[in-house]
Amino acid sequence: MPHDGIDIHSHIVPKVFPPYAGKSQAVPWPSMVPAQAGHHHVMISGKIYRTVPDSCWSTSVRLEDMERMRIGRQVLSPMPELLSYWLPPEDATALLRHVNEEIAAMVREAPTRFSGLGGVPLQDVDMAIRELEYGVRELGLAGVEIATHINGVSIGAPQFQPFFSAAQDLGAAIFVHSVHPCGRDRLVGAGAVEQIVALPGDTALAIASLITGGTLDRAPNLRIAFGHGGGAFAMLLPRMEHAWNTMPTVKEAIPHAPRSYVKRLCFDSLVYDRQTLRHIIGVFGADRVCLGTDYPFQIYERDPSGSVERLELDQATTRMLRAGNAARFLDLPAA
Amino acid sequence: MPHDGIDIHSHIVPKVFPPYAGKSQAVPWPSMVPAQAGHHHVMISGKIYRTVPDSCWSTSVRLEDMERMRIGRQVLSPMPELLSYWLPPEDATALLRHVNEEIAAMVREAPTRFSGLGGVPLQDVDMAIRELEYGVRELGLAGVEIATHINGVSIGAPQFQPFFSAAQDLGAAIFVHSVHPCGRDRLVGAGAVEQIVALPGDTALAIASLITGGTLDRAPNLRIAFGHGGGAFAMLLPRMEHAWNTMPTVKEAIPHAPRSYVKRLCFDSLVYDRQTLRHIIGVFGADRVCLGTDYPFQIYERDPSGSVERLELDQATTRMLRAGNAARFLDLPAA
Repeated sequence: MPHDGIDIHSHIVPKVFPPYAGKSQAVPWPSMVPAQAGHHHVMISGKIYRTVPDSCWSTSVRLEDMERMRIGRQVLSPMPELLSYWLPPEDATALLRHVNEEIAAMVREAPTRFSGLGGVPLQDVDMAIRELEYGVRELGLAGVEIATHINGVSIGAPQFQPFFSAAQDLGAAIFVHSVHPCGRDRLVGAGAVEQIVALPGDTALAIASLITGGTLDRAPNLRIAFGHGGGAFAMLLPRMEHAWNTMPTVKEAIPHAPRSYVKRLCFDSLVYDRQTLRHIIGVFGADRVCLGTDYPFQIYERDPSGSVERLELDQATTRMLRAGNAARFLDLPAA
Repeated sequence: MPHDGIDIHSHIVPKVFPPYAGKSQAVPWPSMVPAQAGHHHVMISGKIYRTVPDSCWSTSVRLEDMERMRIGRQVLSPMPELLSYWLPPEDATALLRHVNEEIAAMVREAPTRFSGLGGVPLQDVDMAIRELEYGVRELGLAGVEIATHINGVSIGAPQFQPFFSAAQDLGAAIFVHSVHPCGRDRLVGAGAVEQIVALPGDTALAIASLITGGTLDRAPNLRIAFGHGGGAFAMLLPRMEHAWNTMPTVKEAIPHAPRSYVKRLCFDSLVYDRQTLRHIIGVFGADRVCLGTDYPFQIYERDPSGSVERLELDQATTRMLRAGNAARFLDLPAA
């Protein structure tokens, strides 16, 4: 019998990409070339974007690693750079269709062990809604991964409302992941600082925009989760709450107390230490946090189940954190 | 006998500004006009930048409020918009000299109840060092307030190293406050979202830059504190630590474990709820957190002493949080 943990935050890269067949010049279309044993380089615009392990596309490698991680079900979502909002919409749709079909194929290989979240070309909201419908209805995806912003416009901006309303109506789960974070021009020094330093604030801004922009008021039943524990949002929320209580302009602009919106959101557990995990569970609630690992990328969490168990919470709460909350986010049938 | 609390985060605005006497056109030079009873508008570029209470410049009003807040000593620093990095350096120097002299005058009215932090024109590092020396040596200021970045360049960038080294050598305390935060183009909706939403991530990026840029390695004895509990830094630090432990490129780029730098930093207590205050004390250490209120601006914390007391820590720890850590940050003689 497989373990019961559900990891809502893992990524895939297809083993191959079709050649670019669009009409534009210099589109940053990805391709794969072999690297060291068990790895491929993802090439974009003639450069190595990232060197990734075979576990990005191999379900058999994933299933072995899941056994070791005590994960029964993994949610597969695109490597965020594949979300392609910066491509011409037709090109992005072609690329994402390939990615979505790959994800659906991986899910079909072990449908009790994988759920799939695809990608949609949100630079064109109508096309994004059509691809969302195709992904959910034809490919059987559980929903989609989206970024924190679309080419610099936060997801809470009004133009994206039709997409969120469509996702709500379709029953599609939305997983939000930072990509091209704000503040990149503020980074200093070498060593992956963009990935390490800029991401938490970026994720927090996206969550805030869904509150300050009214998205969550207009799509109250949306199932939506945020990677990396919601980034910095746990530090932002008390400030928003205090401002809402003390500044009349803030109260006028946001219909409900900022804290009340948290009861509609999920957050993954990927905060990298026990004290911080305990804190986000305290701030957001034990019914709001799901396992997330960033598997199989370099920074991924090797022992997500242990991270939750080491909190020494009661059995029922541990079960919610390891699986129950994720099952609700994904709308899985009760086990 | 006055209360023993020390508030390291309060702001002043001078009651008047001299007329602009520089050579440029359209410099955003501030002026004051009367507003409702007990208030003035700060006018910048012909618009109301902020409407501020008389407590911004009145020491008698401040001392009354401090009594109510159980604060024995307040650290006075400029309203961040007065830091003037976006003015021609000569104009900024003239404006900041006025502000610094006003702060010094307020301190002279009650030197056992106020400490002063001035401002320096960091858009010209040599001029900033000269103004720092003048402020500390001639005006008796305890140090200066600086922003998280200078016109978009994080304070950890190499060009600011001479300033931090000079501050260390002078024994000047540095208080870092967010202004013109990154991510403003990502905000959605009305109601002071810039102030409420964007600031925590911005502060975290500044702290990270001092670590990833090597500033703290080159000025190991710098006394430096960060407003708003370090913003989102408490959520960022475990991610930096995990990356440092798992990614060789990060370890190559940062000489010591990210957590080890925290022992050289202070953070104010302005995080707006008990759970979050307890968390930053847990993450940074009880010897790293000082009272901070944002007095007298609208969002200011009315009961900073109570916020710490409600944590129900032992007496010695409560004393450190209410005064001891701040006295060390300010290098005050032992009480």
